[in-house]
Amino acid sequence: MANTSTPTLTLLSQHGSFGGTVNIYSHASQQCQCTMKFAVYIPPQAKLHPVPILYFLSGLTCTEQNFITKAGAQRYAADHGLMLVAPDTSPRGEGVPDEEGWDFGSGAGFYVDATAAPWASHYRMYSYVTEELPSLIHENFEVNPQRQGIFGHSMGGHGALVCGLRNPDKYQSISAFAPIANPMQCSWGQKALGKYVGPDPSAWPAYDASALVADYGSTDRHILIDQGLDDSFLEQQQLKPEAFQAACEAAGQPLTLRMQAGYDHGYYFIATFMEDHIKHHGQVLCG
Amino acid sequence: MANTSTPTLTLLSQHGSFGGTVNIYSHASQQCQCTMKFAVYIPPQAKLHPVPILYFLSGLTCTEQNFITKAGAQRYAADHGLMLVAPDTSPRGEGVPDEEGWDFGSGAGFYVDATAAPWASHYRMYSYVTEELPSLIHENFEVNPQRQGIFGHSMGGHGALVCGLRNPDKYQSISAFAPIANPMQCSWGQKALGKYVGPDPSAWPAYDASALVADYGSTDRHILIDQGLDDSFLEQQQLKPEAFQAACEAAGQPLTLRMQAGYDHGYYFIATFMEDHIKHHGQVLCG
Repeated sequence: MANTSTPTLTLLSQHGSFGGTVNIYSHASQQCQCTMKFAVYIPPQAKLHPVPILYFLSGLTCTEQNFITKAGAQRYAADHGLMLVAPDTSPRGEGVPDEEGWDFGSGAGFYVDATAAPWASHYRMYSYVTEELPSLIHENFEVNPQRQGIFGHSMGGHGALVCGLRNPDKYQSISAFAPIANPMQCSWGQKALGKYVGPDPSAWPAYDASALVADYGSTDRHILIDQGLDDSFLEQQQLKPEAFQAACEAAGQPLTLRMQAGYDHGYYFIATFMEDHIKHHGQVLCG
Repeated sequence: MANTSTPTLTLLSQHGSFGGTVNIYSHASQQCQCTMKFAVYIPPQAKLHPVPILYFLSGLTCTEQNFITKAGAQRYAADHGLMLVAPDTSPRGEGVPDEEGWDFGSGAGFYVDATAAPWASHYRMYSYVTEELPSLIHENFEVNPQRQGIFGHSMGGHGALVCGLRNPDKYQSISAFAPIANPMQCSWGQKALGKYVGPDPSAWPAYDASALVADYGSTDRHILIDQGLDDSFLEQQQLKPEAFQAACEAAGQPLTLRMQAGYDHGYYFIATFMEDHIKHHGQVLCG
């Protein structure tokens, strides 16, 4: 296993955190055809033995910074001996197509492999998250590649559910905070899928967690979802946890969906329930 | 005790957090002669009985947002039943004098009452923190005004030590992260005191924790300080914890100064040791 000085990764910053370190890296992405950044938390246990990996996918407008600075996850990751990996939410930079607005383009890659022009040449976040990024992590850090979990928030909760459901061999544990759980049936998802994947909805179910559960049937992985009841995007029907719950019930997919009174869509909500999510993953990945 | 709808405070935002709420307020400040903002964390216990108050003073360039979004303190404040209060670091806005640079003026009030022109009319952060803000908190929230602690980071660690040492009747507990512990002997402090209080150093000791301990002698309040050994400002001689330690030893002031290997000056450091600091205050304030 190579160390962190392999030339594929450039270390941009490093900070001590709960006995381990928070590192920010950049690298040239083959999938996204641009420079991508990601944050990692290396727990103290990684000095002693390879550790499991837990990926966090962030929501609309976020970068690799939001989760690692605001979610308060490092303390619990240090308790369990989990490495955290938090990528950016889209390709970015010169030559990467973008458009006005915050819910499509930069900061809004939606964790799909775009097939429609002009997005297809760079917007390949599904393959970036499920293939390129894990390969980089496996090559560069003291990790156990057989032990991986995935979670995320909002658009990243959608990403975590989709990546996790479609790749049971890669991810042994899945959870989400306020995920976009049925994107084919909400305006954010319809816009993103319609543009990235194209207007024909027959290609969309591969990126819709509620459709995937119906297609793929149940797994033995118990999924945990927390959803704030004061979340304005819940009221606006962007998230639709009830659709995912119904799909799970029909398919026999184990799900704990917790509707949390008094919580909204932001990082104060995420931080409040972070301990439970890290435990959920730790029980599977560190068992 | 009035409720939060009294006209003196304007509620700008409210978010559920660890069973309580994070609220951001603005108000017209008499001391600073401008609109000031502060963040509070109201723990769940405040619904049942008046709670103690713990003030956090932030460092250079910060606003009322940094601590409450990044320090991870709410979890521990909820455990202990402490209200957190985090003010902005200076007066701001139209008509408030400022100058270029990040270490003086806006974001850099240094927790002094300025006496020199043009700063004296607005830059009164010492009286704001020790008088106006506590009065607002006592009037507007379910708190026990007899139970107050104060802590802070860097410039705010300096502020916490100075406010705490000069007001033993107001603050029963004191701690700091990487404080500017001897500002009369570092360039940040000399610049700030020289401009806000004037070039005559005879007026400076009132705002220098190391000088204050020597003048005031010991108290029975045990002070906790954490300082990262990888902190570049430590190396640059801006912080001088050893000067404060020597002053405490000479005066018999109880101090635990912990030099933490592998930690720098930022919020990853603060978050790592936050639990210990909240415990330090909780043991005194909630006993």
